[in-house]
Amino acid sequence: MPEKRPFDVLNSSLNNTVVIGLKGGVEFRGVMAAYDVHMNIVLDNAEQIVNGEVKRGMGTILLRGDSVIYISPS
Amino acid sequence: MPEKRPFDVLNSSLNNTVVIGLKGGVEFRGVMAAYDVHMNIVLDNAEQIVNGEVKRGMGTILLRGDSVIYISPS
Amino acid sequence: MPEKRPFDVLNSSLNNTVVIGLKGGVEFRGVMAAYDVHMNIVLDNAEQIVNGEVKRGMGTILLRGDSVIYISPS
Amino acid sequence: MPEKRPFDVLNSSLNNTVVIGLKGGVEFRGVMAAYDVHMNIVLDNAEQIVNGEVKRGMGTILLRGDSVIYISPS
Amino acid sequence: MPEKRPFDVLNSSLNNTVVIGLKGGVEFRGVMAAYDVHMNIVLDNAEQIVNGEVKRGMGTILLRGDSVIYISPS
Amino acid sequence: MPEKRPFDVLNSSLNNTVVIGLKGGVEFRGVMAAYDVHMNIVLDNAEQIVNGEVKRGMGTILLRGDSVIYISPS
Amino acid sequence: MPEKRPFDVLNSSLNNTVVIGLKGGVEFRGVMAAYDVHMNIVLDNAEQIVNGEVKRGMGTILLRGDSVIYISPS
Repeated sequence: MPEKRPFDVLNSSLNNTVVIGLKGGVEFRGVMAAYDVHMNIVLDNAEQIVNGEVKRGMGTILLRGDSVIYISPS
Repeated sequence: MPEKRPFDVLNSSLNNTVVIGLKGGVEFRGVMAAYDVHMNIVLDNAEQIVNGEVKRGMGTILLRGDSVIYISPS
Repeated sequence: MPEKRPFDVLNSSLNNTVVIGLKGGVEFRGVMAAYDVHMNIVLDNAEQIVNGEVKRGMGTILLRGDSVIYISPS
Repeated sequence: MPEKRPFDVLNSSLNNTVVIGLKGGVEFRGVMAAYDVHMNIVLDNAEQIVNGEVKRGMGTILLRGDSVIYISPS
Repeated sequence: MPEKRPFDVLNSSLNNTVVIGLKGGVEFRGVMAAYDVHMNIVLDNAEQIVNGEVKRGMGTILLRGDSVIYISPS
Repeated sequence: MPEKRPFDVLNSSLNNTVVIGLKGGVEFRGVMAAYDVHMNIVLDNAEQIVNGEVKRGMGTILLRGDSVIYISPS
Repeated sequence: MPEKRPFDVLNSSLNNTVVIGLKGGVEFRGVMAAYDVHMNIVLDNAEQIVNGEVKRGMGTILLRGDSVIYISPS
């Protein structure tokens, strides 16, 4: 096992903006306010992104961990 | 682990209106009346939303947790 | 955890008519005769619904819990 | 929990004709010869049904439980 | 529980020809050489079937249990 | 249970060429260098196959077990 | 069990460039910075690849293990 762990990315992203891709091709961008070991994630000031453009503002949103495909600090 | 937890969003949403996205692209809006640790959720005065417009009223509806993709207080 | 629980909706729906949505977009309406902790559900006088219209009568039907997306008393 | 249980439908369907819907929209009709707690089911004299018409006879067939969506005595 | 069990079909199919349907609509026919409790199955002289016609011979093939939808002695 | 076991196919395929089908219709051919109980598999000299023709060489590739549908010695 | 294990590929890929295929056909290329037993993976300098061409740079990205289909050192 390497010394760096995947969850370090989640921890260092708290209070920072991330882009999250979900199953089915849905993508959200927002400020990560909370996460847990299941990768359930809360974003504040969240926006749904379609083809790189903002589709709609969602405010606070809870994303279910088992729908998450990728998380990227932006 | 951060101090705030994802389930705090569920707890603070009780008796408030939320939008819930399910697998397969179905979306419901209603007043959250109950939830459990599996993210099974009960909405009252629920409406099914398609492309941002109300498709039909559903009254009370129980949503199965493992179909939930996102939950957003509105 | 809230005092009301999602399974209360199942319990109070016994012997009443419900609409149940399954994965893949299939929907059934019928009288709930039985359920268990896995959300396996038995409907009597069940009808398969497509686009809001009755497609066919099914009599008694057992729905497997892990295919259920939503359950709504009607 | 109600007194009637979903598996009662399976038990009372033994040696009777049932219609079974599987994930992916496949449907079989046949005489239920066996089942287990995983809802693995054996049909004798099975027929694959497409749009309400018999597509082909399959003789005996074992259906894997986690592919089952619904089971209806016919 | 009935006296006959679904796995009896697997056991009695050893060294006999079976048709196996997998998720995604793929179908194989061959002589069952081995199986285990997960429904992992080995076919010898396997052929991939598309719309009832042989698409290609595969020789020996191991099918992963959780992809299996149905198994039918032929 | 039969005396031959499905994993025997994996063991006897070590250092031999296999064709592996994955969920979503992707297929790889290569020399099996390693596997584990989850059916995670490593191929060397791997090629991605589309409609029976080589699409691209991938060198060494690790295939995740729960994406595997079938494995066939070639 | 063979002496080489699938996770050896992950360990030897640390700090090297890999291509990772995800469910739904999404593909990323980047430098592997971290992984864990669930195959959660962190890539640095990640690029999303579509049809063999770079679609967009993503910087650091965390890929959820259960979405991974294949990992190939490049």
